[in-house]
Parts: sequence; structure tokens; C-alpha cells
Amino acid sequence: MAVRPATAADADALWAILKPAIRAGETYALDRDMTREQALAYWCGTDKQTFVFEEADGVLGTYYLRANQAGGGGHVCNCGYMTAPHATGKGVARQMCADSLDRARAQGFHAMQFNFVVSTNTRAVALWQCFGFAEVGRLPLAFDHPAHGFVDALVLHRAL
Amino acid sequence: MAVRPATAADADALWAILKPAIRAGETYALDRDMTREQALAYWCGTDKQTFVFEEADGVLGTYYLRANQAGGGGHVCNCGYMTAPHATGKGVARQMCADSLDRARAQGFHAMQFNFVVSTNTRAVALWQCFGFAEVGRLPLAFDHPAHGFVDALVLHRAL
Repeated sequence: MAVRPATAADADALWAILKPAIRAGETYALDRDMTREQALAYWCGTDKQTFVFEEADGVLGTYYLRANQAGGGGHVCNCGYMTAPHATGKGVARQMCADSLDRARAQGFHAMQFNFVVSTNTRAVALWQCFGFAEVGRLPLAFDHPAHGFVDALVLHRAL
Repeated sequence: MAVRPATAADADALWAILKPAIRAGETYALDRDMTREQALAYWCGTDKQTFVFEEADGVLGTYYLRANQAGGGGHVCNCGYMTAPHATGKGVARQMCADSLDRARAQGFHAMQFNFVVSTNTRAVALWQCFGFAEVGRLPLAFDHPAHGFVDALVLHRAL
């Protein structure tokens, strides 16, 4: 496997990953009706470094890395990860997270923060805890889940 | 006094308020070198409703109100407030906060969240606590303060 920067040629592969997650609306606070163009503009925005996780049979995941804040907050980074629906349970997110921590450390970031982890996304929460992330905030009823209604979102953090 | 929506004619007054706060870099995680155009584009962005607090002698403060997240997070709002340097200590922030809570409630938001309150900004923290905001997160050493070095930032929340 390899993690490499996303290019314009990855647009179809990225949208194939982003679309089901955005349409489901269960894990990201994004407009469920986002168009392909809006989604790609968001995920590959100029404030972000966007990567793809690729194996012989194609792109299985994608993540972005960015400074979480500007100015005096620029030493803390933020990432978002998405795995292709047909590749869940294969450790793709785990490998992307490990890669992102390495890159963030190499770039001199002091810490990584996830701003809005939906508390019902227990698979993700467990993975981040496994990587040493601690809950530094709990946002009461901050996410309107399509199936569960209003649920908390978590702020997770780890030093690098 | 009156709080009214900002217009293009307020650009000079807004910049007179934004500039010293941005250049000082002690309260907002914004690039201290932002140009006037960048600062106004940020503060009056299309994702925000921007207001000015005006008295007979001019604009004394400004704040913005926006949805804090898209999609399933759109029912929680976020605000940012700035007071003109010559008007501090006159209750301008207090009146703007009260106004913003009323507007947010009228617009149907369920809660208001401040994502990044610099912990050394004790005047602001005390004011938000006075308005019923609770600390729902503490971001360790998330802000590089020009005088105090790395200090925590707080996530504050109140239901509406």
C-alpha cells in the first residue's frame, strides 16, 4: 500500500468515497446534499493537504491534513479520514491515521485535534483512543444524527 | 445604542476595530499579518451575519453570527465579538452578546458555542460565564500567546 498526495486525476475515486459518507450524514457535519464539485472543493481545499491511500486494486481511502487554526493556533493540526465503503474493516483508517501522525510530526505540528467526532461513531472513537487521543471536549447534542437524533460530538486531542 | 447589520459603508469602522485585535494576536487565532481585505473578507464572509453596535459617536463594536457546522451540526451557532479599543469597559461586549443570544434564539438555533476562547482572555471568559456559558472543552496549549507562550483554549457552550 501507499499513501500519496491526491491529484486532479483522483477526483472520481475521491467522490466515490466522499459521496456515500456525505449522503448518509452520520459521521461528518456536512450538507448531505453537497454536489460533487462542492465536496471536492471542500476535501481538497487550499487550506488542506489531501492524500489517498492506494493499493493495487485502487484507492481505498483518503484523508486531509491542515492547520486547525490560523495565527496563534497554527501549531495544532486537524485531519479528516474517509474509507471506501467496500474497504471498511481492513485497517485502512488505522494506516491513514498512522501516516497522518508521522507527517504532522515531520511538519513540526505540536498536536493533532479532531474537532467534531460524532459520539455514535464508536468505531472511529475506539480507533482514535487506540492511537492515544484523549477526549478534551464533549459538545452536548451537537449533531443531529439521521437515525439517533441529537447526539454529542467529541473533541479529541493528542500531543505529537 | 443600536445593533444593526453591517454594510459595505462600515468597512473603515470595522477595520478600525479588527486591526488592533488582529495585530495584537492575543485573543483570536488569526494571522497577525492579515491585510484589511483579508480581515474584512473573514469577518463579513458569506457564511456569517455581521452586525455593528453603534452609538451616537460611532461604531463601538462588531460581532458575527453563523452556524458553527454544516449538515447535522447546523442547529448550533457560533459568534465572534470585537470591541473598539477606546470603548472597552463600557459593556459593549455584554450588550452584543445579549443581542446575539436573542437573534440566535429567534432564528431557531438550539445552542451557541465558542470554539476557541483563549484562556488568558479572562475578561471574556468571565463575561461568557456570566451569560451562562459552560466550559465543555479545554484544548491543551492550543494557543501561542505573544506574551504568555502556549496557553489553553476553551470551548464554551450554552443552550438557547
